[in-house]
Amino acid sequence: MKKVTQRQTKAHNDRLILKTIYEAGQTSRADVARSTGLARTTVSDAVATWIDEGLVAEVGVGPSAGGKPPILLSVVDSSRYLIGIDLASNEFHGGIVDLYGKIVHRRTIEIGDRDGEAALPLVYTLLDDLLSSAPGPVLGIGIGAPGLMDAHGGIVRHAVNLGWTDLALKDILQERYELPVHIANDVQAAALAECTFGSGKEVSSLVVIRVGRGLGAGIVLNRKPYYGDGSGAGEIGHMKVVDDGERCRCGHYGCLETVVNRRAIVRRARSIALDPRSILHRFAAQPKEIDLEAVVEAFQAGDELVREIVLDTATYLGRAISGLVCALNVQRIVLSGSVTHFGPEFLKAIRREVMQGTLAWLVDGTQIEFTTLDPDIVVLGAAALLLTYELEIV
Amino acid sequence: MKKVTQRQTKAHNDRLILKTIYEAGQTSRADVARSTGLARTTVSDAVATWIDEGLVAEVGVGPSAGGKPPILLSVVDSSRYLIGIDLASNEFHGGIVDLYGKIVHRRTIEIGDRDGEAALPLVYTLLDDLLSSAPGPVLGIGIGAPGLMDAHGGIVRHAVNLGWTDLALKDILQERYELPVHIANDVQAAALAECTFGSGKEVSSLVVIRVGRGLGAGIVLNRKPYYGDGSGAGEIGHMKVVDDGERCRCGHYGCLETVVNRRAIVRRARSIALDPRSILHRFAAQPKEIDLEAVVEAFQAGDELVREIVLDTATYLGRAISGLVCALNVQRIVLSGSVTHFGPEFLKAIRREVMQGTLAWLVDGTQIEFTTLDPDIVVLGAAALLLTYELEIV
Repeated sequence: MKKVTQRQTKAHNDRLILKTIYEAGQTSRADVARSTGLARTTVSDAVATWIDEGLVAEVGVGPSAGGKPPILLSVVDSSRYLIGIDLASNEFHGGIVDLYGKIVHRRTIEIGDRDGEAALPLVYTLLDDLLSSAPGPVLGIGIGAPGLMDAHGGIVRHAVNLGWTDLALKDILQERYELPVHIANDVQAAALAECTFGSGKEVSSLVVIRVGRGLGAGIVLNRKPYYGDGSGAGEIGHMKVVDDGERCRCGHYGCLETVVNRRAIVRRARSIALDPRSILHRFAAQPKEIDLEAVVEAFQAGDELVREIVLDTATYLGRAISGLVCALNVQRIVLSGSVTHFGPEFLKAIRREVMQGTLAWLVDGTQIEFTTLDPDIVVLGAAALLLTYELEIV
Repeated sequence: MKKVTQRQTKAHNDRLILKTIYEAGQTSRADVARSTGLARTTVSDAVATWIDEGLVAEVGVGPSAGGKPPILLSVVDSSRYLIGIDLASNEFHGGIVDLYGKIVHRRTIEIGDRDGEAALPLVYTLLDDLLSSAPGPVLGIGIGAPGLMDAHGGIVRHAVNLGWTDLALKDILQERYELPVHIANDVQAAALAECTFGSGKEVSSLVVIRVGRGLGAGIVLNRKPYYGDGSGAGEIGHMKVVDDGERCRCGHYGCLETVVNRRAIVRRARSIALDPRSILHRFAAQPKEIDLEAVVEAFQAGDELVREIVLDTATYLGRAISGLVCALNVQRIVLSGSVTHFGPEFLKAIRREVMQGTLAWLVDGTQIEFTTLDPDIVVLGAAALLLTYELEIV
């Protein structure tokens, strides 16, 4: 419980009014007063402030309810821009995003084998480009990065693929660009994107599971990102799921990530290239040329051996989801990343496993879907950090 | 975000001041003003109100910091009493609890084979007795019950052992006793007890795992009970953990509850009574006489066959905890119920499994302990619901 002073009350109410207009799309002062319970004058004063700042505009006239027809208000989507950055494994992606999640400009930089100190200048290059391309005032910079982030302190604790340890990225970028900066783990950012711009607009809580180079979950509870005591919430890739399993890059054996990630699927698929029954047999001379696309194609063509691998992956993923549903009773689970290419049958196999590993009444209300925001989900989530922490409208 | 009016601000500040005094144990008006940032007059007014209501008293004089020595304030532990009820499997437990978690009166009722409509009058009997024994004003009634509770609506959705379905327990009891009533799942209540009166006073989040007739987890995040979208958070007993496992009472196979609960342990122990190497062989003629106490005794005496069963249980429990730590990054895990009787070696085996199934940096900051609140943990948690929802001081 925090103390509340009069000034805080005003700031709180101003933001509540902005949030109400943002969520409504179009609304009138009277409707804002009704839905917030605030006095008409409080609403009018706040709206005047937001119009002065350009964030809100009068956009037309609504239907009359008998008297004078009301003036409609909207948040101006292009009044501020959000810079969202996805520090992905092989390339950095950046986008200029408007207040309603439309990406108006994109930029990607290949990072090759650069890491550690050599990777940071690439972030600057990306940001310099994006900032110079912004068509209007920029609200701030959001960063989604793989690894352990201290979101509160803005510090990259460990980002293995970038070779960064205890890097005060937020401070470095705030000083360089004189703009607010927020960072989060990439999957945690993805979850915020889903909640803000995706299928989660109407729900209070959701989990995004992202499978790519690794596997992780991002959790939003009561419409706020949930990071856990040590910022490590959602690190489900390293739960032990296979007895006597393979060694994982984390040093342990049989982690979920050893069986559910892009490389694990491709590696298993390569091992069947020698079997003439498989479509992948055409790669028998060069099994290394088998990539995820080839596996997806063979799966969809009904290759039995490939199906076994892919459905096995679905079973492990389903069991992990079942654990999350049992623990959190979150009713919206959204999948993102490579595995979504396997399509509806893969999703069906996951759902079947979750049904079998979860109390019926827990799973009945639970939806498991693919995201519609890929491949931009992390860029959008990084941008959404600014809506959450700077404007407090999501 | 909720609207804030002036009256709400005052109510909020009053409760914040009460909470501050409660947590401090003893403190002065000046210190409350300092730590809350509120104006001295705001604090004085609120304290006067609380003294009028008997909840706060002036209890002495503190050391002078140069000027006039400050008057010390405390929350009066006996100014209100909380009724906490644990609707456990074979008997109902009730307690009259003071504001600091001291149980001043207890009552237990055997329920035998009564369930459904026959069980409700036993709740009345228990409450009638407790209310007539209360040494002071009663703040309300808190109930912890096994099964699915709709905590917000105060409805028992399913309580299999009691045979209750969609029972509006909160309304029924509020009408009968004209007191505020709050209900929660028993393990969710236990988690709140640990957070309020137990080892969790200093942490923001914790999970209590309770093993008894069944197995469940109670989750407190940021010092608030976390119930999930459908009030089913923490139902980890029905996660699938054994391939081709036994049929569970939920209808599925291989649930965690089929291997980790009191009966499962006893059942497995009975199966080894015929083996002359086991201490339990003395029950060979009457294996049904083996109860948990006998298993604990054999375990502590070093019976190798029993040790295997118990440590196997620890492994399954450890793996479930590992899943929770990975998903939630909650750094305090507390065990309650039957399994705590197995003592430190059991705990060590759990910790070993968690270490192996969790990223090192996630598990390094994580403590796994036995509760010190058993066997009263659910009664205390039910009482703590009132501190949370009526006084808002936890």
